[in-house]
Parts: sequence; structure tokens; C-alpha cells
Amino acid sequence: MKAILAAGLIALVLTLLATWGFIGFLQRRHVGQYVRNDGPTTHLKKMGTPTMGGIVIIGSVVLAYFLAHLLTNQRPTTSGLLVLGVLVLTGLLGFIDDWSKIKNRRSLGLHPRAKLIGQVLIGVAFGWLSLNFPDGRGVTPASAAISFTRDINLPGFRLPLVIAIIWMTFLITGFSNAVNLTDGLDGLATGSSAMVFGAYGLINIWQRNQWCATASTVGPLCYEARDPFDLSLMAIALAAACFGFLWWNAKPARIYLGDTGSLALGAAMGAIAVCSRTELLLLILGALFVIETASVVIQVGCFKLTHGKRVFKMAPLHHHFELIGWEEQTVVVRFWILCGIAICLGFGLFYAEWVMSL
Amino acid sequence: MKAILAAGLIALVLTLLATWGFIGFLQRRHVGQYVRNDGPTTHLKKMGTPTMGGIVIIGSVVLAYFLAHLLTNQRPTTSGLLVLGVLVLTGLLGFIDDWSKIKNRRSLGLHPRAKLIGQVLIGVAFGWLSLNFPDGRGVTPASAAISFTRDINLPGFRLPLVIAIIWMTFLITGFSNAVNLTDGLDGLATGSSAMVFGAYGLINIWQRNQWCATASTVGPLCYEARDPFDLSLMAIALAAACFGFLWWNAKPARIYLGDTGSLALGAAMGAIAVCSRTELLLLILGALFVIETASVVIQVGCFKLTHGKRVFKMAPLHHHFELIGWEEQTVVVRFWILCGIAICLGFGLFYAEWVMSL
Repeated sequence: MKAILAAGLIALVLTLLATWGFIGFLQRRHVGQYVRNDGPTTHLKKMGTPTMGGIVIIGSVVLAYFLAHLLTNQRPTTSGLLVLGVLVLTGLLGFIDDWSKIKNRRSLGLHPRAKLIGQVLIGVAFGWLSLNFPDGRGVTPASAAISFTRDINLPGFRLPLVIAIIWMTFLITGFSNAVNLTDGLDGLATGSSAMVFGAYGLINIWQRNQWCATASTVGPLCYEARDPFDLSLMAIALAAACFGFLWWNAKPARIYLGDTGSLALGAAMGAIAVCSRTELLLLILGALFVIETASVVIQVGCFKLTHGKRVFKMAPLHHHFELIGWEEQTVVVRFWILCGIAICLGFGLFYAEWVMSL
Repeated sequence: MKAILAAGLIALVLTLLATWGFIGFLQRRHVGQYVRNDGPTTHLKKMGTPTMGGIVIIGSVVLAYFLAHLLTNQRPTTSGLLVLGVLVLTGLLGFIDDWSKIKNRRSLGLHPRAKLIGQVLIGVAFGWLSLNFPDGRGVTPASAAISFTRDINLPGFRLPLVIAIIWMTFLITGFSNAVNLTDGLDGLATGSSAMVFGAYGLINIWQRNQWCATASTVGPLCYEARDPFDLSLMAIALAAACFGFLWWNAKPARIYLGDTGSLALGAAMGAIAVCSRTELLLLILGALFVIETASVVIQVGCFKLTHGKRVFKMAPLHHHFELIGWEEQTVVVRFWILCGIAICLGFGLFYAEWVMSL
């Protein structure tokens, strides 16, 4: 528990201070965001705001993770390192994207296909590695079953190896892109991600307390995961880092996450869900990201099917509400409220499943 | 647990819908807020926005409380009813204040002394009543001891009856006015209150799980309170009501809490802290409200002592940051972050005390 508190505190203080320094660093070098020219016109004034804030978040989380382990004399776990690997590698992919935008002075960076290939490669590597490295009890970081609050033990939910890796890759890539799409208004993606990671911090502590490795009751009454404690630490560090970054990212944003941040945060969410055996629960906890992505899919799908009809004034959904007259910060706070309600719902279901299975 | 979820859900849905209707109702009657004419000049455009939104919050919480008990066939408890009484009565006091402002078309309502006398009377009545009504185990809703995470069992912390009532009155009146002072920017007091009540929801559930009435271990290892479960229900209903109200109260606010809301929410916070034996912990969980109040005390004190020197550009503190150039919504989000950090700190101390006393 001391390690979790230490990781959270380090990540919070680091992002609060380092983001400040990073903003100055980027401003002195005139490195700024190029805004998509097909977004709402009111967003054009955001041109030139420093971006790639994800670098600070990722750096702080990596430092917080290792410092907390050093301070409390604990060894990093395989699950923790795998999530950290996904975070850093997708962050790197996002950084290449951000950097090519800045270098080429346009709002499009890496070719979408190149980005997707990178994400899939990271997802597949994570999926494959996470099914290896069994601990003393034979439990691997991830399992080949589809999970809700724990692995679902029904026929059809235990997948063959290849399908399992495809499913994990889909989840990680999907959430990576979902957070990326949601990151269009000041503070929206950062605040919502902080809430989801905070929820995972609590869920993993709960799973640790009723862990099959220590629980006196074994069977359907305990949670099976390889390293629930370390996953909780990682989730809390991520939540704290997002929280600290939000200080500077709140409207009017002094800095953006960039693809560096949004792709990495989403991928880490997916990886934590996989390792804590709560894959389908993530669709509820992160419902805001799912809805934002769905709005894009619906918009594009309808546009193609009906040869030009639009369901929303603009996708992703947050721009739709801006265009019907909500102010940017109203959309942000209301979407945070929706995210909070989704998380309460997720908690409720998680707890209900526990009570009913007792 | 079902009762808590039901109360939260009812309060959330009611405030979301009823606030909407209430805004229309007030607008049709041209009932609006008169803004203090000594505040930042940018706030003058807020003149005329509907106020007294606290009526919706209080009404929703009362309904949610009783409906949740009816639905789950539970009897209301003395602690729950006492907190509810404080909420409704301070709300009524605030309503008289708001109403006299509207009727007299000025930003000052009830005479400050009349308001204070009303608050003190409510506090004393609560303090006196809460030291009666022992349950089967002889536990009363409040105790005569000063408490942190539980009653402090040291000489000097167990107070004589009269001092104990004065202390409780101070806490309730103090927080009532603190939330009132904090309620100066769109969404600030509502969002922060939602967080504090949410924290109390969790803390009371935790206390219920390690409750002296059911715990196998008795002594310093359990929490003593009369009705922890019902206090948790009340806190969650209040958090959900604030959350639902925030939808309409977020910048640009369509409606304000008014004194009806802010006085009532603060008093309820104090009452919950008293009944759950976490009085000093409230000073940490609600540190934002404490700091805002301190800024006014410091400002006024220094002004008088130095014959005219000011510490802040304007008190309460949130106006100071507005005047040094932060945008309103930036102050709000950053103060929410501070409130969130204070709550994490409070949780940490609460948990640390538990671990260390094991």
C-alpha cells in the first residue's frame, strides 16, 4: 500500500512540475500543435499550443513505477512491466506521429495505415508475451479467456491462442484510438482517463484483497490475476499523472496530450484490462471513449451508405455538441459527468457480480 | 448496498431532470440572481441567472432517502434523519435569504447576524439531539469526543456536554459558511461538494464493514458509530444530487445553488462528519473549503490590522486567481484538482490510521 501511495505521489508531483517546464521548453523552440483544418472553426485559435505532453506523463509514470519499487524494496512484476512496455511503445509511435506533424507543419502525421500497423504489432507482442511467464502457481499475466469481472468460465469464452491474441490486440488498439479520438477538447481525454485509471486502481486493490493466491476460499469466490497489486500501482500512477497534467491541460489548455499521450493512455487502459481480467468491464468503465468512437463509425458508415447524409453535425460526438451551441467547457464537464456515471455503473456491476457469486 | 445504489440513482436522475424543469420555471417568472457588486466586474453578466437550485438538490435527496428505504424495506435511522433535518432546515434558512434578495432586488439578503443565529440554533439543536437516542448498544448518533478517523480516546479530547455541543455547532456552522463562500464560480462548490460527499460514501461503507456492532474484533480495531450504513446512503445521495446538478451548474451556469444550496450542503457535510466520528478528517477532505474561508479571514484580518493592506487581490481566494489572469474555468478545474488531491490525502490518512492500529 505504501508503494501505491508513493507511486501516485511521485507521478502527481512530477507531472505538475515537469509539464510546467516542458511548456516553457517547447515555447522557446516554437514547437506547437497543428490543428485539424476540418474541425470547428473556433478551434483554429488553438494553433501553436505546445503538444506532446504525453512525454511528461509517460516519463513520470515510468519514474514513479521504478522509484516506488526501489523505495519499498519490491521487485517489478511481469504484468507491470508489460503494461509499462505497451505505454512506452505506443507513446513512441505517437511521438513519431506528432513529430512528423511538427516537422511537416501540417495536422496529419504518420500515414493512418502505418500507425495502425504499429499499434497492431505492439498489441500482438503484448498478447503473445502476456500468455507466457507463468508465476509459481502457473498463472500468466493474461489469460486466453474473455473476461468481465474475472475470466468467464463458459464455453465459447475461452479462446484458442491465436484468437485470444487477436482479441487482446483489438482491445488495446481500439482503446488507443478511442482515447485519441476523444482528445479533441481541452482536458476531456485527460480527465476521463484519470477517472478510468483511478477506477482500475480501486478495482485491482479489491481483486488483490480477494486474490486466489491468498484467499482462504478458492474457486469462483476469488479473483485470479498474476500481479493485481502491481497493476493497481500502475493504474494509480497513471491516474495521478493524468490528474497532474490536467492542471495544465484544463481550458484554456497550455499544452496538449498529443498522439504521444492519447495513444499511450488508451493502449495502457486496454493492457490493464487484459491483465486484470476485466476486458468487457472496460467497455463500461470507458463507455465515454466507446461512445465517441461509435459516433465516428456511425457518421462515416451512414455517410457512405446514404451517399452523403450525416447523423451528427460533426464527429467525434463532442464536436457535434459544440456545433449545436454548447460551449467547449460545458461539453467537457458534461462528458466528465457521463464518464463518472459510467464508472459508477461499472463499479456497481463489478460489486454486484461479487455479491451474487458469494 | 442495494439501498445505497437506489438512493444514488434516484437522486442523480431527479436532479438531472428536475433542475431542467426548475430553470424553465424560474425563467418564466423572471426570478434571477443578483450578483454582488463588489465582485470581479466580469461577473456582472451573470446577473439574472436563475438561482435557488439548492431546492432541487434538497428535494431530490429527501425523496431519494425515503424512496430508497421504502424500496428496500428498511427503516430510516436516527442519524440519517438528523442529517436530513440539518440539510432541510439550513436549506430553509438559505431560501429565506435568497428570497429576500430576489424580493428586494439586491445582492444582500438576510442580515448576516440573523443568518448566523439561525445556523447556530440549527447546530445546537442537532448537537443536543444527536447526543440522545442511544441504540441497543448505547451508542448515540454523535459522541462528546473530538474525532479524527474515530473518536480520539485521549484526555482532553472527550468534551463536557456543553463544549461538545458548541464544537459540533462550530463545525456545522463553519462548513455551512465555508461552502457558501466557495460558491462563487460556476460549478466550483457543486463539484467539490460532490467529491467530499462521494468520499464520505466510501468512508462510511468502510466503517460499516469494520463496525464495532458486527466486527468479531472489538476495541480499537473497529469503528464505532450508530448508523454507518445510513450515513453512507445519505452521503451517496448527496454526491449524486450534486453531480446531477453540476450538469446544469457547469460554466456557463444555467442555474446557481444559491444560499439555499450552499448553506445546506456545507451544514450536511458537518453533520455527516459528526455522526461518522470523522470531524478532524473533514478539515482535510474539505480542505478546499477551509482554505477559501481562511483566505477571507486573512484578508479581512490583515486589512484591519494594517489599516488597509490587502494580502490577496480579492477574497475569497478564487477571485484572487481570476484577477491575476486565470480564466474562470481554469480556476474551477484547478481547484477541483486541489480538492481531489486533498481527498486522496484524507483517504490515505484514514487508511494509514487503520493499518497502523491493526
